[in-house]
Amino acid sequence: MTVELICVGTELLLGNIVNTNAAYLAEKCAGLGLTCYFQSVVGDNEERLTMVLNTAMERSDIIILSGGLGPTEDDLTKEVAAKVCGKKLVMDEHSKKRIEKFFAQRGKEPTENNWKQAKVPKGAIVLDNDNGTAPGIIVETKNAKVILLPGPPNELIPMFEESVTPYLQKLTKEVIVSQTVKICGAGESEVETRVIDLIDKQTNPTIATYAKTGEVHIRVTASAENEKDANKLIKPMVKELKSRFGNEIYTTDVNTTLEKAVVDLLIANNLTFTCAESCTGGMLAARLINVPGVSDVIKSGYVTYSNKAKRKILGVKKTTLQKYGAVSPQTAEEMVKGLKLIAKSDVAVSITGIAGPDGATEEKPVGLVYIACMVKGNITVKEYHFQGNRAKNREAATSAALILMRTCILEYFSKMTFGKK
Amino acid sequence: MTVELICVGTELLLGNIVNTNAAYLAEKCAGLGLTCYFQSVVGDNEERLTMVLNTAMERSDIIILSGGLGPTEDDLTKEVAAKVCGKKLVMDEHSKKRIEKFFAQRGKEPTENNWKQAKVPKGAIVLDNDNGTAPGIIVETKNAKVILLPGPPNELIPMFEESVTPYLQKLTKEVIVSQTVKICGAGESEVETRVIDLIDKQTNPTIATYAKTGEVHIRVTASAENEKDANKLIKPMVKELKSRFGNEIYTTDVNTTLEKAVVDLLIANNLTFTCAESCTGGMLAARLINVPGVSDVIKSGYVTYSNKAKRKILGVKKTTLQKYGAVSPQTAEEMVKGLKLIAKSDVAVSITGIAGPDGATEEKPVGLVYIACMVKGNITVKEYHFQGNRAKNREAATSAALILMRTCILEYFSKMTFGKK
Repeated sequence: MTVELICVGTELLLGNIVNTNAAYLAEKCAGLGLTCYFQSVVGDNEERLTMVLNTAMERSDIIILSGGLGPTEDDLTKEVAAKVCGKKLVMDEHSKKRIEKFFAQRGKEPTENNWKQAKVPKGAIVLDNDNGTAPGIIVETKNAKVILLPGPPNELIPMFEESVTPYLQKLTKEVIVSQTVKICGAGESEVETRVIDLIDKQTNPTIATYAKTGEVHIRVTASAENEKDANKLIKPMVKELKSRFGNEIYTTDVNTTLEKAVVDLLIANNLTFTCAESCTGGMLAARLINVPGVSDVIKSGYVTYSNKAKRKILGVKKTTLQKYGAVSPQTAEEMVKGLKLIAKSDVAVSITGIAGPDGATEEKPVGLVYIACMVKGNITVKEYHFQGNRAKNREAATSAALILMRTCILEYFSKMTFGKK
Repeated sequence: MTVELICVGTELLLGNIVNTNAAYLAEKCAGLGLTCYFQSVVGDNEERLTMVLNTAMERSDIIILSGGLGPTEDDLTKEVAAKVCGKKLVMDEHSKKRIEKFFAQRGKEPTENNWKQAKVPKGAIVLDNDNGTAPGIIVETKNAKVILLPGPPNELIPMFEESVTPYLQKLTKEVIVSQTVKICGAGESEVETRVIDLIDKQTNPTIATYAKTGEVHIRVTASAENEKDANKLIKPMVKELKSRFGNEIYTTDVNTTLEKAVVDLLIANNLTFTCAESCTGGMLAARLINVPGVSDVIKSGYVTYSNKAKRKILGVKKTTLQKYGAVSPQTAEEMVKGLKLIAKSDVAVSITGIAGPDGATEEKPVGLVYIACMVKGNITVKEYHFQGNRAKNREAATSAALILMRTCILEYFSKMTFGKK
């Protein structure tokens, strides 16, 4: 079964934003065993969108459109899709009520054009949008299924996971099952060389690598008559990957993020956590606190951006800052020691670095970061060199801190058990 | 003059990589005054690539293809383009020498299939590749210019800047200039309603609205013979928008983010800042600290996630937490007062709320957030109701805090000037 993606938006044609929706949808569809031969981007223009949609419906079984479902005049994806599929637009009372509720909960009044979003092609399947006002829509014609999704990723992604995935799974006869093995700490090319033999002789299951910041995900995908048989095919491959990567694998659950894995590790070992962040300025705390239930382990965190804050809040010595500088292993270590005193947590992490563009010197380039991690009094300090801009370096440092935390906690407890023997 | 982009690569169809080339090329072409109506992604497949290229040549003046110029068998963009344009492939001695040199400089031997990369369609313009072995190619037919570029961004980008840009500049007569007006605090449909008359009668310049979290961006785009005339067309429209939205506009510079505007406001008024975050857990500090030069105004920040942290670090009264709860205007106010004492900053912000999915009660639903902002001792506390998942609610609360900061600072200083009168 073939799928084709059409992303609608002038901002894509003007290059104002990168088309991450296409990458997300393509990856998900591949995982569902759908073959994608074409992707298109077109603007909010009736004539051209009609042309692209007609072509897609002639050559593909499933067409996924994203964007152009907004309340404004220039949003016309739904209107064009309805016309091309030969359906009238009718008011969907269920969606209308949801939109009313959406505004009521914000203490706001919907404006006239919001009701435009409650109209759907007659007989269409309506997909609830829990993160916005535009419902998703599936129109089934004789030759094709046309799926309309809102453009904002925070609306499109949950809707795809919750509503579109089960719909697509029902369409494909053979069952496609995939499992994602998430590896942290190793680069993509390194991971690839360690599995190249598996990639070369792959048939069913297939394996593909995906590079993320500080992580590489390997997706193992098998197709079979039923889920049980597909899982039978996947199992030995996942086992092989586990034997090759061991502890570098932090999860085999596609929904578990690195921060979730680290929080689970803290909870499982009943460890409290705190951090002091300089260049990342809150990003580490922010990522960890995005995990529900984190309140059991994280009580507080500190953004110590200035030298004064490092001294005042963490008690870093003035002489240390003068002699070694704020971005030094010595400062990172004193930061984490200071944390221990004020927060009394089992695990403490400090981050200090030069995110750029300013602040670099001859011997301290942009991207130089020191991260210290203390687990029950045992301190590890690590040096990193990142190659991105300010935002990328801060993101990379945050991921590196999560990976270092995980490594230090695992090492601490493996030593413990070893000692017990 | 119209341009169309065709990105060739199975890795794009599988979602292994995000199509940053398309965004880069689209932005550059728009800046050159070329109108882009279509972008496509297709795999390394002769039949389908031929189909897409033929369609593009029927409807666009310039077609830019990226990818599929590699030395291997499955790279066939050049072969297909030559066939579609009715040109023979011939060995280009100049490119052959450059490939020999490329390998020699790396102490490597070219393999047989590398010579495939030195072949170009007869009569084509050859673009030197200083960062790889595949030369760029421009084929001019009666109806279209077909430009072939290598896929790797580190080869494509320099080649576009050095060779393609000057080529395209010669072709285009008109220039397109756009300016973005960024509005905070109002929703997209509200903004649209307030400019609907302008949208309805728009010709040149055109205006379009883009929704962001807590913001709406209006892009004004004009085309003219030269930049000066285009700016003349844009100016009155931007002036009109300014008169309609006034202080709701935080910038008219496309590169200025909301956090940058807020940091600039702090710097301009020489104000220091600190924050205490509960549900956002570092996100506000993280966003502000992503602005270069922020160290002049932000010294520290606090993540006070637990009640204990709110008491211990900020001195929130136990009775307040018991009587009103952690998520209450009273707690938000005491948090910000506590901040003032420990950080002594001119501006202080506290955020406390229920991000979800847990923690909600009958009278306190998920998405309820209180934000307190203190400017020189004047405290404002605001209640918000967000309706997203945990991540979305935290993101929305962070944007709301930035907007509240901006409002409070502007109000404080307008009162000051008023008082002086």
